[in-house]
Amino acid sequence: MGAESYTGRINRKLNKKLRIVEVAAGREKADLVLKNATYVNVFSNQLCCGDIAVAEGLIVGMGEYRGEIELDMSGKIVLPGFIDAHIHLESAMVSPKEFAKAVLPHGTTTVITDPHEIANVMGTDGVEYMLQATEDLPVDVRFMLPSCVPSTPMDESGAVLDYRTIDSFYDHPRVQGLAEMMNYPGVIGADPQVIEKIVAAQAHHKKIDGHAPGLVGNDLNAYIAAGVYSDHECFDPADAIAKLERGQFIMIREGTAAHNLEALLPLLTPQYADRCMFCCDDKHPSDLLEKGHIDFNVREAIRQGVDPIVAVKVACHHAARYFLLNNRGAIAPGYLADFAVIDNFQDFNILQVFKKGVEMYDGTSVRDFPAPEIDPYLSQKAHDTFHLARLTAEDFAERRPRGIIGMVPGELVTTDQGYSDRIDTGWDILKIAVIERHKNTHHIGIGYLQGYGLKGGAVATSVSHDSHNIIVVGTNEEDMAAAANRVAENKGGIVVLENGQIKGEVALAIAGLMSDDTLENVNRDLEAAKDAAFALGVSRDIDPFMTLSFMSLPVIPTLRLTTRGVIDVEKQQYI
Amino acid sequence: MGAESYTGRINRKLNKKLRIVEVAAGREKADLVLKNATYVNVFSNQLCCGDIAVAEGLIVGMGEYRGEIELDMSGKIVLPGFIDAHIHLESAMVSPKEFAKAVLPHGTTTVITDPHEIANVMGTDGVEYMLQATEDLPVDVRFMLPSCVPSTPMDESGAVLDYRTIDSFYDHPRVQGLAEMMNYPGVIGADPQVIEKIVAAQAHHKKIDGHAPGLVGNDLNAYIAAGVYSDHECFDPADAIAKLERGQFIMIREGTAAHNLEALLPLLTPQYADRCMFCCDDKHPSDLLEKGHIDFNVREAIRQGVDPIVAVKVACHHAARYFLLNNRGAIAPGYLADFAVIDNFQDFNILQVFKKGVEMYDGTSVRDFPAPEIDPYLSQKAHDTFHLARLTAEDFAERRPRGIIGMVPGELVTTDQGYSDRIDTGWDILKIAVIERHKNTHHIGIGYLQGYGLKGGAVATSVSHDSHNIIVVGTNEEDMAAAANRVAENKGGIVVLENGQIKGEVALAIAGLMSDDTLENVNRDLEAAKDAAFALGVSRDIDPFMTLSFMSLPVIPTLRLTTRGVIDVEKQQYI
Repeated sequence: MGAESYTGRINRKLNKKLRIVEVAAGREKADLVLKNATYVNVFSNQLCCGDIAVAEGLIVGMGEYRGEIELDMSGKIVLPGFIDAHIHLESAMVSPKEFAKAVLPHGTTTVITDPHEIANVMGTDGVEYMLQATEDLPVDVRFMLPSCVPSTPMDESGAVLDYRTIDSFYDHPRVQGLAEMMNYPGVIGADPQVIEKIVAAQAHHKKIDGHAPGLVGNDLNAYIAAGVYSDHECFDPADAIAKLERGQFIMIREGTAAHNLEALLPLLTPQYADRCMFCCDDKHPSDLLEKGHIDFNVREAIRQGVDPIVAVKVACHHAARYFLLNNRGAIAPGYLADFAVIDNFQDFNILQVFKKGVEMYDGTSVRDFPAPEIDPYLSQKAHDTFHLARLTAEDFAERRPRGIIGMVPGELVTTDQGYSDRIDTGWDILKIAVIERHKNTHHIGIGYLQGYGLKGGAVATSVSHDSHNIIVVGTNEEDMAAAANRVAENKGGIVVLENGQIKGEVALAIAGLMSDDTLENVNRDLEAAKDAAFALGVSRDIDPFMTLSFMSLPVIPTLRLTTRGVIDVEKQQYI
Repeated sequence: MGAESYTGRINRKLNKKLRIVEVAAGREKADLVLKNATYVNVFSNQLCCGDIAVAEGLIVGMGEYRGEIELDMSGKIVLPGFIDAHIHLESAMVSPKEFAKAVLPHGTTTVITDPHEIANVMGTDGVEYMLQATEDLPVDVRFMLPSCVPSTPMDESGAVLDYRTIDSFYDHPRVQGLAEMMNYPGVIGADPQVIEKIVAAQAHHKKIDGHAPGLVGNDLNAYIAAGVYSDHECFDPADAIAKLERGQFIMIREGTAAHNLEALLPLLTPQYADRCMFCCDDKHPSDLLEKGHIDFNVREAIRQGVDPIVAVKVACHHAARYFLLNNRGAIAPGYLADFAVIDNFQDFNILQVFKKGVEMYDGTSVRDFPAPEIDPYLSQKAHDTFHLARLTAEDFAERRPRGIIGMVPGELVTTDQGYSDRIDTGWDILKIAVIERHKNTHHIGIGYLQGYGLKGGAVATSVSHDSHNIIVVGTNEEDMAAAANRVAENKGGIVVLENGQIKGEVALAIAGLMSDDTLENVNRDLEAAKDAAFALGVSRDIDPFMTLSFMSLPVIPTLRLTTRGVIDVEKQQYI
């Protein structure tokens, strides 16, 4: 469509609205009628019955209607489509289109994403890439702008985003606000460069999401008074209630890395539930394919005794109101015709899913839809994010003692295991390196890693929080160089290699984070690569790639490795 | 303040925010601390205890704080300031400053007004006048733009507002949306000129209020699907629930003309209360002085058994969320320091009221505050809205038979009482006229009125819904002319007159609707004028001016009188 005047826009919307009124009043046939539907009414907090009429992608009325298409809903329950309140789409390791295909069968029709990972690689081009890659998908993808790129000044990321850099994105119709303000010490300490990001988001009347694990008392007051409206890091009810009673909305997180649903079920009562929503934060391929998405949270909550109406509202209505997406999250006239149809609350099987009145999932397969068009220049740029020289074993040679980072099974925290000056697989002491890959600086940080278990070869990954440089861990420098070089050749991804032979790999050519392949193929490659890593000795109680990917994040205690060496996180000093 | 760049604005807000964080974190003293406060927490739905710290007009934290001013709140209960969700400020017959002085002692800190009355007189200049007259008042006055000016094409108002005429006002920071869409037949009938007003409001991401008494079924679906988000005309729970369960927010109205609180108390339960708020629609001087404002609703609701926390939330939090005024309606960090302090829930006496952290009412008197500056051109224009020639008895001479409008005590509906060709006080048949006063057209509609009771003289008023022409009713044409002329001389208001002698009068020189005098003086004059009307025989069971003012509103059955004659409202025909 070409340029459109304001009057032209009003006229276009007027014509659509006139048709909606004609259908709602019963003078014209609806596009679609869900006949004899039992549906959750989020306003009167009960199940209602009747026909649900749809025109122009919107619900126009409930009662008695005739439609061009009429589908009998007897014996089923119709729910508003689900909303994931906070996810980094990149965590699915596939394109947004593939992600949408994966979550539609689970009833998800809206997600709020923070394109934080790709922004660390490509800056605002990464945000724009994701906006274009999600345009008109049958899952509505809304954005929160990354607030902390890089995670700390110690990180060497592909970009630095200050408030001016991201400001113009607030005008985009799918941008809802500023994403998780992870730098809570900066907020509480009144760092102007941190606070001004919040001030700018507020000036645009946008939401600001929070990330403040365990923050309490007057520091929590300061963080909230600064303008942070939500939190998704709550791990127990006391933590959540302290935030909720100060006005924050609580996103109950159940994802691949963090599992807070069970602990936070006590929030899902009439006293607190209005201020709660669901999110997953991150969701890896196998998790998406095996566990599902927001439907998993609702099903689990109901099984553990939560009132089904409350659980459904937490899965849709509350997030919609928080993000001011006031045309969804309910079944009522004027709302988007986004539905998840289930068999019953106990089994909670998703039978059909509709997006804007179109059946996108029929219980068997997802209706095909076009991939969004992406500016070729931007697409090319997203596929060319590795800027580093070819590596040799010499690059990883290091005689001086370096800190040993201790991995803890099932946790993201690490321990300080002292120093080493050599690899010793007998003591499970491996060499680990982080290689700057954005600006060809040839910065390579070297340290040692204990607890990973590798007995031969090397493992490398370009998914490495938050700057997404290349992390490589190995039993010898030759394989480390070969694995890292192979990652760069693939334009990103994961490589497991021994004696120069590739044992498993996943190519992630979009910014080194996402694949152009299908979710099923990525999952197959990823599982095969995991098996290869386990075969080389990696401990079975560690996720070989996810756990590794956090070794470079210098904001979680105790020791981490950046492109400049091993850091003591609490002291924010190199050791 | 001169022009300010975006960067300048961010910097200014940043400096304020940095101080807020310093105070919240406890590193600087607060401006004000309410010590040992018991306060309603609208998020956890309970009473909480602690200090409430205020800086820069905002609440910064609850807990333990020190402040420049510390006020002990022991034994009192602190509530968020109240919000009136829908009022025509003009109904108070005083300037907005006087209105603010009147409602502050009742705990009101925000009102949403529809400047519908003045807009019928002055068009967009009237809207602009009210915006200027409310700037920076200690009661935050927010606006909904009038949607139905004139009320019908049969009316001769001072202005006609289509969507383009009001469009630029949506950019004003205190405009929240489009006011009550009274023309619900136009919406349901898909009248493009009606629907485009809704479409334009939605294009600006604004709210649209409703007004649809008794609407049900698919017509109600059509009205809501068109984009109307609330209703304040509900008179019984069934009517309200039908709207609520279709997604409308319900404004429970308790004002001077309509009393719906008691009937709608069943809504104030956990099942429905989240979608309810309070409003008064109109509030006359004596009512404001004697009954109070939103505090009256809360007190009554609690006395009739509503949970006090629920009643308080309905009085503040829900309206704030509906209107997207997300910085008020709660006591929490980042929220406006707007408080109503009471003694206890049962007596519900307002002891103190704070606006943005300033004590505006101390239990005895209202702190003085400046009157907003109004553009002199606009002020002059508002005081010069009577454009008509001097009237004589001849103007009211009429030999042909005219319809008789029957007044019904305590109701706004009228009855069809046949025809008359003369005044006959023995049968209580009076002459009534509506005189066009905006454009000097000399249009005068003449009819007869039964049930008013006047035995001598005439009563005239320029408060005459919705076009605010002059209504005059009398026992003889000479007094009718004199009373109407006196209204015009006073530049508007109410006149009671007999044999050329003024028996009582209220000057309403601002657009013929509001006085420049104090509320107390206006009330004194108004009560004296009422007594004068009663002394001249007006029935004691009729409000002599309010009931009269509705005789010209051609949207309420059965008969009405406009500048062109008596109308049968249901047929929309002159009789």
